Amino acid sequence: MRGAEELRELVEDALAELTFAGPAGLDEAVRHALDGGGKRIRPVLTLAVGEALGSEPRELLPAACAVELVHTFSLVHDDLPALDDDDTRRGRPSTWAQFGEAVAVLAGDALLTEAFRLALSYETPLVARELADGTLGMIGGQYLDVTESAADLASLNRLKTGRLFEASVLVALRVRGSEPRTWGRFAESVGALFQLVDDLLDGDGFVAAHGVEETRRLADESAERALAALDEIDADTSVLRGLVEGLATRTA
Amino acid sequence: MRGAEELRELVEDALAELTFAGPAGLDEAVRHALDGGGKRIRPVLTLAVGEALGSEPRELLPAACAVELVHTFSLVHDDLPALDDDDTRRGRPSTWAQFGEAVAVLAGDALLTEAFRLALSYETPLVARELADGTLGMIGGQYLDVTESAADLASLNRLKTGRLFEASVLVALRVRGSEPRTWGRFAESVGALFQLVDDLLDGDGFVAAHGVEETRRLADESAERALAALDEIDADTSVLRGLVEGLATRTA
Repeated sequence: MRGAEELRELVEDALAELTFAGPAGLDEAVRHALDGGGKRIRPVLTLAVGEALGSEPRELLPAACAVELVHTFSLVHDDLPALDDDDTRRGRPSTWAQFGEAVAVLAGDALLTEAFRLALSYETPLVARELADGTLGMIGGQYLDVTESAADLASLNRLKTGRLFEASVLVALRVRGSEPRTWGRFAESVGALFQLVDDLLDGDGFVAAHGVEETRRLADESAERALAALDEIDADTSVLRGLVEGLATRTA
Repeated sequence: MRGAEELRELVEDALAELTFAGPAGLDEAVRHALDGGGKRIRPVLTLAVGEALGSEPRELLPAACAVELVHTFSLVHDDLPALDDDDTRRGRPSTWAQFGEAVAVLAGDALLTEAFRLALSYETPLVARELADGTLGMIGGQYLDVTESAADLASLNRLKTGRLFEASVLVALRVRGSEPRTWGRFAESVGALFQLVDDLLDGDGFVAAHGVEETRRLADESAERALAALDEIDADTSVLRGLVEGLATRTA
């Protein structure tokens, strides 16, 4: 069974090999956005769910990369001056800072559409349907964020972060033709865990609203819920357990 | 057999009945963009191809609306200050002028994703694949346009306008499980015709580059090519012939 680091390398290789259908200049902007590194936690999650179910990574890589492309699209648009106005991302110029706003809007659009093209490489439409549902949830969360109209932080995060995390789990099931059933609770908990630890590392979000101690407590609770959910699942979830523990204790 | 005007009304009704998955405020922006009227020529084309093949509009409406949603998404993003900077569209404030830039970026993203959700309501992934291919072509064309890097106007239009027109024809075939075969030439000619007449009405594009007379000649040539392509197709293409003639002679 492959560990998380090996799965991450498979994701990096698959992302590096993707070819895009656009004009050279647009592809360069798309590539810039995608090559920024990052933890690739969502596609690794997809592959790790697949491992637990006995799928080969090869079968899952298009779905895993599709999820990462949606995540990357969201970063490219979120960084725009009209939204979060971030001119750097992971120590490099953000896409709009490097290529201009117009190209960044279009590069985000292209990433989102390429994500669907990848998810549509399967014979079943169910993979792409999960991706569409997760993406719409995420966009809704982003809307609540930029308009500051969320009822509370937890429901904002359930949409903005949670829905694409859920999709990264569910697409792996859909590739196999399995029903989500028992995986729903795991998918939800792991998204919450990721966001809470993110807030702990950045000192914002939940930390700003409720303090470090309470956020740590909620994060640990989410990790426990995710592990308890894995206990209920009849599969070799050892890699996933390691991922959850890694997410709970990560320092970057 | 239903005429173009009847098909257009079916499209309007179906668009009016669409429900979106996002938060209320985002849905309002999406609805604003979609309710702007317009000729609905792409989805009417989808339904008219379906009529020629003996499909019921009901079967084709999700695909037809999906194409219109992609078109609407492209308008919302094109109107942004960083791109064409248009604060009105069809006599009403454009989406960003009404709701702000951030919401317009997200409303465009939501429209594109909702388009895929609609195209994914079919059991076959081929409808959504055609949509993805057409959308990527269109985004590529938009990139060439904003960066002024197209080799020539014809190849720009083939992407920016042509590819989504093609998709509006091809999705109708995919819904039926038919292969594009003989329809390719029709799809291409009708897209070129639409763009050339648009340039004649707006006095820009081909008209600015080559003059009215040459543009009119090319438009008539495209119309003839589209009609000749229909002659080769073994189906009742009478509504489509009417559409082509309507496009060739339209004054708005």
